[in-house]
Amino acid sequence: MSAPFIHDDFMLQSQAAKELYHHFAKDEPILDFHNHLPPDEIAANRKFENLYDIWLAGDHYKWRGMRANGIDESRITGDASPRDKFDAWAETVPHTLRNALYHWTHLELSRYFGFEGLFSTKTASEVWEIGLEKLAQPEYSCRGLLEMSQVRALCTTDDPTHSLEHHQAIAADDSIDCRVYPTFRPDPALWVDDAEHFNTYADKLSEVSEVDCSTLGGYCDALRSRHDFFHSLGGRLSDHGLHHLFDADCSEEKATAIFEKVRSGQSADEADAEAFGAYLMLFFGELNAARGWTMQLHIGAERNNNQRLFETLGRDIGCDSMADIHHAGALRRYLSTLDLRGHLPKVMLYNLNPKDNYALATMLGNFQQAKPGDPPSRLQLGTAWWFMDTKEGMEWQINTFSNTSLLSHFNGMLTDSRSFLSFTRHEYFRRILCNVIGTDIENGEIPRDMEMVGDMVRRICFQNPAEYFGLELG
Amino acid sequence: MSAPFIHDDFMLQSQAAKELYHHFAKDEPILDFHNHLPPDEIAANRKFENLYDIWLAGDHYKWRGMRANGIDESRITGDASPRDKFDAWAETVPHTLRNALYHWTHLELSRYFGFEGLFSTKTASEVWEIGLEKLAQPEYSCRGLLEMSQVRALCTTDDPTHSLEHHQAIAADDSIDCRVYPTFRPDPALWVDDAEHFNTYADKLSEVSEVDCSTLGGYCDALRSRHDFFHSLGGRLSDHGLHHLFDADCSEEKATAIFEKVRSGQSADEADAEAFGAYLMLFFGELNAARGWTMQLHIGAERNNNQRLFETLGRDIGCDSMADIHHAGALRRYLSTLDLRGHLPKVMLYNLNPKDNYALATMLGNFQQAKPGDPPSRLQLGTAWWFMDTKEGMEWQINTFSNTSLLSHFNGMLTDSRSFLSFTRHEYFRRILCNVIGTDIENGEIPRDMEMVGDMVRRICFQNPAEYFGLELG
Amino acid sequence: MSAPFIHDDFMLQSQAAKELYHHFAKDEPILDFHNHLPPDEIAANRKFENLYDIWLAGDHYKWRGMRANGIDESRITGDASPRDKFDAWAETVPHTLRNALYHWTHLELSRYFGFEGLFSTKTASEVWEIGLEKLAQPEYSCRGLLEMSQVRALCTTDDPTHSLEHHQAIAADDSIDCRVYPTFRPDPALWVDDAEHFNTYADKLSEVSEVDCSTLGGYCDALRSRHDFFHSLGGRLSDHGLHHLFDADCSEEKATAIFEKVRSGQSADEADAEAFGAYLMLFFGELNAARGWTMQLHIGAERNNNQRLFETLGRDIGCDSMADIHHAGALRRYLSTLDLRGHLPKVMLYNLNPKDNYALATMLGNFQQAKPGDPPSRLQLGTAWWFMDTKEGMEWQINTFSNTSLLSHFNGMLTDSRSFLSFTRHEYFRRILCNVIGTDIENGEIPRDMEMVGDMVRRICFQNPAEYFGLELG
Repeated sequence: MSAPFIHDDFMLQSQAAKELYHHFAKDEPILDFHNHLPPDEIAANRKFENLYDIWLAGDHYKWRGMRANGIDESRITGDASPRDKFDAWAETVPHTLRNALYHWTHLELSRYFGFEGLFSTKTASEVWEIGLEKLAQPEYSCRGLLEMSQVRALCTTDDPTHSLEHHQAIAADDSIDCRVYPTFRPDPALWVDDAEHFNTYADKLSEVSEVDCSTLGGYCDALRSRHDFFHSLGGRLSDHGLHHLFDADCSEEKATAIFEKVRSGQSADEADAEAFGAYLMLFFGELNAARGWTMQLHIGAERNNNQRLFETLGRDIGCDSMADIHHAGALRRYLSTLDLRGHLPKVMLYNLNPKDNYALATMLGNFQQAKPGDPPSRLQLGTAWWFMDTKEGMEWQINTFSNTSLLSHFNGMLTDSRSFLSFTRHEYFRRILCNVIGTDIENGEIPRDMEMVGDMVRRICFQNPAEYFGLELG
Repeated sequence: MSAPFIHDDFMLQSQAAKELYHHFAKDEPILDFHNHLPPDEIAANRKFENLYDIWLAGDHYKWRGMRANGIDESRITGDASPRDKFDAWAETVPHTLRNALYHWTHLELSRYFGFEGLFSTKTASEVWEIGLEKLAQPEYSCRGLLEMSQVRALCTTDDPTHSLEHHQAIAADDSIDCRVYPTFRPDPALWVDDAEHFNTYADKLSEVSEVDCSTLGGYCDALRSRHDFFHSLGGRLSDHGLHHLFDADCSEEKATAIFEKVRSGQSADEADAEAFGAYLMLFFGELNAARGWTMQLHIGAERNNNQRLFETLGRDIGCDSMADIHHAGALRRYLSTLDLRGHLPKVMLYNLNPKDNYALATMLGNFQQAKPGDPPSRLQLGTAWWFMDTKEGMEWQINTFSNTSLLSHFNGMLTDSRSFLSFTRHEYFRRILCNVIGTDIENGEIPRDMEMVGDMVRRICFQNPAEYFGLELG
Repeated sequence: MSAPFIHDDFMLQSQAAKELYHHFAKDEPILDFHNHLPPDEIAANRKFENLYDIWLAGDHYKWRGMRANGIDESRITGDASPRDKFDAWAETVPHTLRNALYHWTHLELSRYFGFEGLFSTKTASEVWEIGLEKLAQPEYSCRGLLEMSQVRALCTTDDPTHSLEHHQAIAADDSIDCRVYPTFRPDPALWVDDAEHFNTYADKLSEVSEVDCSTLGGYCDALRSRHDFFHSLGGRLSDHGLHHLFDADCSEEKATAIFEKVRSGQSADEADAEAFGAYLMLFFGELNAARGWTMQLHIGAERNNNQRLFETLGRDIGCDSMADIHHAGALRRYLSTLDLRGHLPKVMLYNLNPKDNYALATMLGNFQQAKPGDPPSRLQLGTAWWFMDTKEGMEWQINTFSNTSLLSHFNGMLTDSRSFLSFTRHEYFRRILCNVIGTDIENGEIPRDMEMVGDMVRRICFQNPAEYFGLELG
């Protein structure tokens, strides 16, 4: 091997792909419109001690890979030392050939740490030392990494009950170029199946909003007030993580009755939880439509499947997977109801189980009718997500989008990540996108008009989401 | 770009593919055994004023694409001028890169109008003028276009209550070479969930058949009489558009009770509608088997999803999509029941949601047992349909068919179209078919025996359906 | 055609693929850890008279292909002569282009009979004669074929009520190098929906185990005793063929009540059969975990779909297909329950309907936590199975495995076959595997480090299953 594994033309398998990437994609800035970065760390401009801290500590993708490699849990989430856990990852990486983890790992080591070798136990010490050295430098702070990655704006994921103090601090700080916006993610506001949890939540919402939440009307007012507050800080997206789309008729009277019962301490049964969820999701749609926001729906995850590890380690620890249920009917009723009421906002639907890509993309296509002031392709199948954030998954999503809608208007990539090193996934996506489109050119399936095709690529990388979401950019 | 986008070897990515297409596929005539062409226009040999009339007026695929491009509804289905709507389509086409619409558009402009450029606002006026000029010529009448496209026979889609007067007129007219047959499509005959609609339908059926439809027996006799009439005009196929395959036990007694209730003015509930549908679908299977007909089942569409546009614009306006439901069990029971009764006709099953291709194709394979006088592969997974009438969709269908059955006996392409310009889809299909098979030859996966392989290609293009359906050809 | 169809580089489409196959895959021995070979024929070292006997007599894949070719049933499973049936197959093979049957047929004729032509009616007599000549030679006995195929060990599929006398005979016979182990497949032990059948089965189990089966405790003891007996003969795998994973809570009390009711002659209803199945499957999981065995789950087949042929010909005659149901939730509950009880064994899950590959593979990934003494990747999506035992199906399974887990630990291929000629499917799999991975190398998606990548290939071919299952090898 003379060339390093991650070289200039990595993943670019034709001349047209190389031209598209290098001339049209590579230099576009990043608008990361959905991630889970911690705003407090950006506000504090956190620095990291070592590669464990920045790379492994919160990454359940890697934990899952290590478990599949037979690594003992103590070296994954347990009390082993940071270096020992890092070594466990080094043992695992050579076994991740053909998995996106192999590509992500080497992209991150190359782009942020200048390491061009193959990561394994043989190179672990070298890499660990590089990490110590680089991370000690000021440009490896959170903000430094955002700058290094050319991130123009990003949207974190935030609960309505959060004070957003860190977003305020960032906004007030002139020394940071990247805009950092909150995303309104009110999932717990729907969880009436656990009265105790719900009441704590409602009380907290009441406190932060200074709106009385003893009635359903008050509760909705409080949520609207927080939505307004997010808006005032520049937020223009909501996000909803749903196993399935709630699918029930629920009048205001019924929702009121459920709300009051739960507020009085009695948990809702399954049917009532479904009904209440349906009611509130329509309400959130209305809030978003009224403000010109975009509603993000992340559907199809089956979470916390390993009961034992859930009880030991909690949520988001690498024991989630794909549901295999029906979505199309519920999506139809949700979108059509919003549309009939004149409350259908822009929608980005992220689908987890790839078998459903086509059915869901075609359903979105039924509701594309133009609204004054709105961008084209108001409803979109979002980029491949989580388990499908792979070459195969992204190609499938790109193909489904292309075949069922207008790829030209696609909003492209987001990281959905908790890590400041994940912006390389935009590079990964762009290389795959250019490779797919370049192959079409080579095969004569789209014209070899590089300006026309390159313009489409460029727009998908940055300009489309910049225009679609209406976020103010730095 | 020296060569035009649509050139001789368009979509043919290997030497073997080119050889297969040019030597074995290209010159075969067309047997379009399923479409929605209007028989009255063929009978009257309608001419078209402009490209809006022939190309946009009835095409909900294009409407859907325009909506995704943010075009205002007035310029799609509204009161804008034909030229303005044509311009809206020109604005949209450059955004359809990677969508089949891009290929269809350019194939149609090339093959019928000799336009070899790229369609966009820049070329819209030129194309509009070409359209005016060509369409004024006598060979651009309906019949002229059929001749230009080498269509030997076609099957329209017709209700049992239709008089078929236009088919009779066409049959009586010696000046038309292409045979035009009716297809028996009795969907409304099942719709007992709306008593008023059903009774109007039954009365109309009674009138046209001159059979009393006040009893279930009479109703079935009337349907059989119409089936006979379709047969007398050369029809050899029925067609059934079903969200799902009806799946219920329904005795004659039960069907009678439901029928009488509905005839008395009371709409059937969901369970009764399911039962009555199951009963009649078995009856239709029996009619088809008795006559040696082929039964076409189009399953898996979720229709009229946008309630608001349905109320404004009605059916078939681009607001349908894919269902994501279970089909295999119901298909099993339907086919096995017909088989047990000795009434299993030839079946072409068109599946919409591609995730179900494999399950349905393998289910069909359970009922292939030879019947005297019947062709091989009596049951077939029909070509990719509607949203899947794309390169990806057709390749998936071809692969599923190949892996689960004998591609050699495949009946190949049909347009399923309302447009006289859609016969280029046979060309599109043939290019894709040859490309897939050519790639196999280049990869050594099938022998480089061009006569053997070419013969298979040739048969799929025309000879297979010509032998399978038993339609008389011109 | 100068080179024969099956040549050295068959299916190997790049230089890297050829290198991987010839240097790392080709010479690895075979561990066929799941098949349906008849142990009595191995014990008796059966010889075959002709190609009908060894090739067609029990092969429902070929029967299905012949039915799709319109062959009369008399020449498939009926009373036609062996030669006539062989000729029917020769008529069919040229129509199987693009179907795995075409590749299997030519691989088997090439590897075992040295026939390098294309099989058809033209060559049928030549091939028949070659068959007669070769099969008369001593090395074409069952054991000779195992030796010719370099099979180090194989696992047959056996009922707990079987005496395993043939396995004992084989084990006692020093003249056979290949180890032949039984697999514990207790499917009928769950079938309480037919009291008569169940009671016959329970009585037989009682007899062979010499344990009283009049109580549920006794019944379970008898099953455990047989499990022990299988273990004593070297068996280390169970196998379970399930339409769906049973999914019900069933206490010991409830299971006892159901058992007693059925033992008293009353068949269980659907809900009780589901509950009893769930109870026993947890019990089998526990047996396997306690012994360090691997549990094989074959899910998603819809069997005996053609009622008429089932009544005429019985089971396993080519009238099975894929179910299209939901599996993920039931798999979650099954694995999590076993895990909570500390009884989760190693699991190989074979999924039939490819749309479910991703959901099931990601679900398995939730339970990978290391157990002392166990290999990495304790739970695996098994290789593509039955209808998916094709190039497309195997590639999909390899890709799903790669993207959701660590391909490096994959246990690779098994034949699942009833035929002594099917070991060429290991070759077929290895060629496809090397081709997939070689393509990645050529595309720069995995490093061109042939030792590292070749080692992964070599391990998937033999070493991984050799280490994973803990079977003693010859």
